[in-house]
Amino acid sequence: MNSKLDTLKVALGERSYPIYIGHGLLNEAHLIEKHIASRQVMIVTNETIEPLYLQQCIKQFSNGFDVNAVVLPDGERYKTLTYLNKIFDSLLENKCNRQVTLIALGGGVVGDMTGFAAASYQRGVNFIQIPTTLLSQVDSSVGGKTGVNHALGKNMIGAFYQPKCVVIDTAVLSTLPDRELSAGLAEVIKYGAICDITFFEWLEKNMERLLERNAAALTYAIKTSCMKKAEVVAKDEKESGVRATLNFGHTFGHAIETHMGYGEWLHGEAVSVGMCLAADMSESLGWISSSDSSRVRSLCLQANLPVDLPKEMKAPDYLEQMKVDKKNVSKSIRLVLLQKLGEAVIYDCRDETLISEMIVRNQ
Amino acid sequence: MNSKLDTLKVALGERSYPIYIGHGLLNEAHLIEKHIASRQVMIVTNETIEPLYLQQCIKQFSNGFDVNAVVLPDGERYKTLTYLNKIFDSLLENKCNRQVTLIALGGGVVGDMTGFAAASYQRGVNFIQIPTTLLSQVDSSVGGKTGVNHALGKNMIGAFYQPKCVVIDTAVLSTLPDRELSAGLAEVIKYGAICDITFFEWLEKNMERLLERNAAALTYAIKTSCMKKAEVVAKDEKESGVRATLNFGHTFGHAIETHMGYGEWLHGEAVSVGMCLAADMSESLGWISSSDSSRVRSLCLQANLPVDLPKEMKAPDYLEQMKVDKKNVSKSIRLVLLQKLGEAVIYDCRDETLISEMIVRNQ
Repeated sequence: MNSKLDTLKVALGERSYPIYIGHGLLNEAHLIEKHIASRQVMIVTNETIEPLYLQQCIKQFSNGFDVNAVVLPDGERYKTLTYLNKIFDSLLENKCNRQVTLIALGGGVVGDMTGFAAASYQRGVNFIQIPTTLLSQVDSSVGGKTGVNHALGKNMIGAFYQPKCVVIDTAVLSTLPDRELSAGLAEVIKYGAICDITFFEWLEKNMERLLERNAAALTYAIKTSCMKKAEVVAKDEKESGVRATLNFGHTFGHAIETHMGYGEWLHGEAVSVGMCLAADMSESLGWISSSDSSRVRSLCLQANLPVDLPKEMKAPDYLEQMKVDKKNVSKSIRLVLLQKLGEAVIYDCRDETLISEMIVRNQ
Repeated sequence: MNSKLDTLKVALGERSYPIYIGHGLLNEAHLIEKHIASRQVMIVTNETIEPLYLQQCIKQFSNGFDVNAVVLPDGERYKTLTYLNKIFDSLLENKCNRQVTLIALGGGVVGDMTGFAAASYQRGVNFIQIPTTLLSQVDSSVGGKTGVNHALGKNMIGAFYQPKCVVIDTAVLSTLPDRELSAGLAEVIKYGAICDITFFEWLEKNMERLLERNAAALTYAIKTSCMKKAEVVAKDEKESGVRATLNFGHTFGHAIETHMGYGEWLHGEAVSVGMCLAADMSESLGWISSSDSSRVRSLCLQANLPVDLPKEMKAPDYLEQMKVDKKNVSKSIRLVLLQKLGEAVIYDCRDETLISEMIVRNQ
């Protein structure tokens, strides 16, 4: 059925798992079934994905599996303990035991919530990810970060918990809105900026093809992004060191998302602005040239991403949010900046005025 | 200051930790301070313990530590996601970062909730347990089971997460109500019944001294209980095998607690009735003699524990609850029974009528 199936392995010892990438994988039941321990399956999805792909996903399990589904409302604003509890309600109402397998069918929010539900239901059950947005395919499918938001901070409650496998079906991107395609490209650009100048240059040349949803270009970009992330995560699963570089653009980005209210800005859009800010700060520290800083901004613009700060936010708004960031160590604010284009570095900033000045300069 | 300090080690590889047992340890700051990573400390306690021991606990940290406290209402009914979120509120309002150490100062509910909060705040921070009830000293201080209840099942949401150390100060038992002392003794009796006939016999001879709160007897019972549990947990941290024997009396016990509404029955009281039922079932299967079954019942009675089923519950009420128990495998109900007095065995029961008959017989 499927002539081109790429398999990437995320190497994490006994928690290692495969990522399957290909066109039409949602019809390939054999890929998924071998990763399911018992006959109990609970699919978690959202109201947007349900009419598009839920029946197709359920169909894979016709032979005697006990398949149930829980449908959450769509959006970052529902990524809370309250909606997490809806998953637990459904698992308990259906008398699911410790052998159940949870399947996340949706974007990053569904993936993060399902993963955390799997990590904590009965203190841990299996889960599988079927990411349906570009962003979740290149980001949350690797790394095992799961969780929910708190009113006072994004992703503040969660667990490191690895899936048994990830199935990336590039065919599902055909139904993805343009705005979400662009948001996903922000994370793709990030990998080029922080660790692969060659990939960054490839993106500069191929952004048009990606926006046109050329299948070969998308597959290459997804595969490269997952590989880059898998390499970093294999070195540092719990983010004690190099993994923090994956948060390039995210410290500022999270501040925007939290302050503006979850859902107003897409995660990738906030990361795009965050990357431009981080590039500017790297330039002002004399680490990268103004032309390299401009290349980050141009590539984001090419991907139809926002690059300017939201007018509503002032410097103290950013600082307030950034001080509760998980990556901070003692009193400093942890930033990820560019040592050069294609190489990120962690910078614990103890001087808030440096950050304030940069924000004012960019407003 | 303290001439008698016992230290037990729970052997779990890189997650190993010490349990300190002694009289007056709450005044020995040096024990705790060496397990705290940074200066940020958040003490979680409840309204009952706050006036008794919170100030004494805070006093330990006078030298430049940043100590905050969150006080939860007291009781199993508050062991929910909603109240868990109060801990996250407090951590975020106080801008606690990933280096914070959470300290559980209280009984099993405070310990379970604080442990789960520590497991999930920013995907994992350090925690320390200072159990203030006999039950939590002999039970939740070993094993790393953390979590909250769900309306449809006890301890259904949680994580396996180990503390950095446990401080058992036997002096705090002086303020424990009699009813709670007895509830703690139920778990102590359990260790004798499932894995140590000599300890069981010691309890038969020394129950009076324990009820009189004789310090030497209590210390011996606590230390032996923790050792027994530590041995089992070291063999099977994630409860894939032998650890399940620690649930002797708990399958029936959880059914009682859940059906009667959290808080009506103390956990240890429900476990006492559950142990008597399990002993009766072991007898009816021909595994133990009627005189051994009576010894379990008598020892529970000696400890002033209930041994009869609540009149309000009928056989189907138990079965309904027992079917969602975490320990179940596929369609069977997992029970822990006695192969002989002093030796437990796991029994996956596929015949519900066996259970129904035994419940009817005991009503």
